[in-house]
Amino acid sequence: MSAPSPATLQTVLDHIDAGLDASRARLFELLRIPSVSAQPAHAADCQRAAEWVRAQYADLGFTTAVHPTPGHPVVVAQHPGPAGYTGPHVLYYGHYDVQPVDPLALWKTPPFEPQLVNGPHGPRFVARGAVDDKGQSTMFMEALRAWHDAGGGIPAKLTLVIEGEEETGSLNLEPFLVANKAALASDLAVISDTNMWDIDTPAVTTRLRGMAYFEVTLKAANRDLHSGLFGGSAMNPINVLTTILGELQDADGRIQLPGFYDRVKPISNAQRAQWDALNFDEAAFLGAIGLSKPVGERGYSALERLWARPTADINGIWGGYTGAGSKTVIASEASAKVSFRLVADQDPEEVFSQFQRFITDRLPAGARVTFQTHSSSRGIEVNTDQPWVRAALDVLSTEYDRPAILMGCGGSVPVVNSLHRVLGIDTLLLGFGLDDDQVHSPNEKFEQRCFHKGIRSHARLLAKFAGG
Amino acid sequence: MSAPSPATLQTVLDHIDAGLDASRARLFELLRIPSVSAQPAHAADCQRAAEWVRAQYADLGFTTAVHPTPGHPVVVAQHPGPAGYTGPHVLYYGHYDVQPVDPLALWKTPPFEPQLVNGPHGPRFVARGAVDDKGQSTMFMEALRAWHDAGGGIPAKLTLVIEGEEETGSLNLEPFLVANKAALASDLAVISDTNMWDIDTPAVTTRLRGMAYFEVTLKAANRDLHSGLFGGSAMNPINVLTTILGELQDADGRIQLPGFYDRVKPISNAQRAQWDALNFDEAAFLGAIGLSKPVGERGYSALERLWARPTADINGIWGGYTGAGSKTVIASEASAKVSFRLVADQDPEEVFSQFQRFITDRLPAGARVTFQTHSSSRGIEVNTDQPWVRAALDVLSTEYDRPAILMGCGGSVPVVNSLHRVLGIDTLLLGFGLDDDQVHSPNEKFEQRCFHKGIRSHARLLAKFAGG
Repeated sequence: MSAPSPATLQTVLDHIDAGLDASRARLFELLRIPSVSAQPAHAADCQRAAEWVRAQYADLGFTTAVHPTPGHPVVVAQHPGPAGYTGPHVLYYGHYDVQPVDPLALWKTPPFEPQLVNGPHGPRFVARGAVDDKGQSTMFMEALRAWHDAGGGIPAKLTLVIEGEEETGSLNLEPFLVANKAALASDLAVISDTNMWDIDTPAVTTRLRGMAYFEVTLKAANRDLHSGLFGGSAMNPINVLTTILGELQDADGRIQLPGFYDRVKPISNAQRAQWDALNFDEAAFLGAIGLSKPVGERGYSALERLWARPTADINGIWGGYTGAGSKTVIASEASAKVSFRLVADQDPEEVFSQFQRFITDRLPAGARVTFQTHSSSRGIEVNTDQPWVRAALDVLSTEYDRPAILMGCGGSVPVVNSLHRVLGIDTLLLGFGLDDDQVHSPNEKFEQRCFHKGIRSHARLLAKFAGG
Repeated sequence: MSAPSPATLQTVLDHIDAGLDASRARLFELLRIPSVSAQPAHAADCQRAAEWVRAQYADLGFTTAVHPTPGHPVVVAQHPGPAGYTGPHVLYYGHYDVQPVDPLALWKTPPFEPQLVNGPHGPRFVARGAVDDKGQSTMFMEALRAWHDAGGGIPAKLTLVIEGEEETGSLNLEPFLVANKAALASDLAVISDTNMWDIDTPAVTTRLRGMAYFEVTLKAANRDLHSGLFGGSAMNPINVLTTILGELQDADGRIQLPGFYDRVKPISNAQRAQWDALNFDEAAFLGAIGLSKPVGERGYSALERLWARPTADINGIWGGYTGAGSKTVIASEASAKVSFRLVADQDPEEVFSQFQRFITDRLPAGARVTFQTHSSSRGIEVNTDQPWVRAALDVLSTEYDRPAILMGCGGSVPVVNSLHRVLGIDTLLLGFGLDDDQVHSPNEKFEQRCFHKGIRSHARLLAKFAGG
């Protein structure tokens, strides 16, 4: 096999430009399927979305299957690439499921009737899933379609895994990977489910934070009490819970779990210099959401706090009387959901032990506590020296005509851990979302310019895999 | 007019004994009306309860009226007493409204289907309002019914004020008293809404704590945020609220509002000796509700902490995601209901300022706070030398055949302040509740023995008013 020529790549890119309306029309077909994985009423829609994805790849000559799971199905599509292909076997991961749409009242147009509207960056697509992840995963498919239609065929050996439970925690994905480990064996994963730095500046994401998410319930008296008759003698579990959780961070924003920072490594000076050079405008970032001053650990830059430092957030708290007016009650229990964003090397199990100790060390006599773990994943730090990271930077820099950057992401993409754990492969994260895409919120959108250049970038990356 | 003879009183008491089942049946009628004042859905039930009370007193020959207010109505019933009556004009205050029933799941029987069940003290009544205050205020009515049916008529000049908003802070009562000041002019108030020392030991309550009840809401970002994308930069209002409220008390249980203790007076040594002599068993008091160690200010006896020291309790807290499972959200706001039990001389308005300052002094830049006052009343300390306190002790000691005691109560009866402020009268608090009555809790109950002897005690007290 010979590497595709620059002329072939140009033909493919031209085909992408000419076919943009058709690419968008195909994406809109998928966006019209309300595949909300969290809601049992949409189970058939998830099945329908899976079939739609499978049919697309079948159309491109892939061997395809829709695999049932205890939840929603996983689509697998495979192609051997051209005869004599010597490049990497690439696994592309995406998901066809979307978040629930509530609050529906805040949507300006129906979430499953995709709209093409004009914004400051030109046309954009508005729909649930426009970017996350239907829009992003369709880019890879459209790049393949262009190679198939205009470039002489699928240029690389590929396995696609498109699942339907990413928005509900991918509970059945890892068992599926384990059960199909041999069939899915590959050299490298590619995922488009992250963001660019801004609409003009492409990026490869090399850091993801992990997550340790717990629920804690404190119980005191065996029933709710009248605060007049018992106040001054009986323990109030809400007072106790606020006192304990109030100590989660000190005045400098340092998390107080014993040993919490033991495995947190500082970033390199080179990394710090690179991030400083981005001139991140934290005031504008916070201003957009109505805030003025940052929180987080003192002594770290904004990007460091967002990408390379762990956090502690109380995501929910409840106890006692929460209705209208007042009730003079001392509740019998109080609860909170508390999550820690973790960085590479922190172990969620260890953090759970630290959290338990933090609480129990402060527990007054007579209080009882129960814990529950809701999710648990490690942070990711990709080795930026590996050749495919370099190749991706190269492709993006060419497409955008400016240097692509290496960035972090404060969120988690737990599948990256699963792919590493089960298949032993690293993941290349090149995403084309923007910070203002309203992911998981009403009026989710995806810029057409991002979609278009995302398809082109994937087409270029496929050429690289093929040795071009 | 001549004072009722001992023989007449005995006839009345015998009539009470013989009619106990009928008295209980009338109380159960009232208990079946779900007059939950806090819940708008029960407004018609409150109206119905008011009408029920009015009809009872009309039946006893009282002049009656149901007076509308901006909230739930006030029932007034008046009787001139016997011709030539020279005793005090007594105002009896009660309330027909009850607390909400939640958590409903913890009730063993439906809260508005009163049950007669056997307990260690014999039969008891189980229902929302069984004791507070339908049960207690019905005792006075039944004593009057016995005088009416068997004692020759209503023996004293009486004004009854039975309101429907006690459980929501009696917001419309004081304006009502002011507007009807002349019509309600009287010499003394009587209220049964407090407890005995124990089932064998009757008491007159001479100390009540006041109340300052606030709601505070902290707002941060203008929308809910993804904790991965914003965690480490964006303020989390639940973290902030727990940090601030966690500092409400120090490790010794001292409340940290600036100036909070300035007006709190120590009790006299005589008072302390009297309370110490009661040998209050705090371990048993707490053991009954499943607790082992007391809270409250270090350095004070249990009764002092319950009756003569102020408290700070978070009665409710909520914010963020509180459903099943997890959501990686940084909420835009968090709220708490916080109440302070006050002692005599503490000013609720002043405490509100102190609370505001306590919060705002600790507020990070960019956080916004709103406050709401739900209720506000001063503590009470009754002069124990007044003649009707002595008369009540005498009546109770006779009925129970053991000395009645003077006690405090950790709760509030805010109307006592209003009656003093508007009508210039003192209040005699003789109550028949017990500590384990589950007031404001699921499975609220009232002992039939307390109900029965309460009716008899009121019958005796009415004879005292008439000069007997």
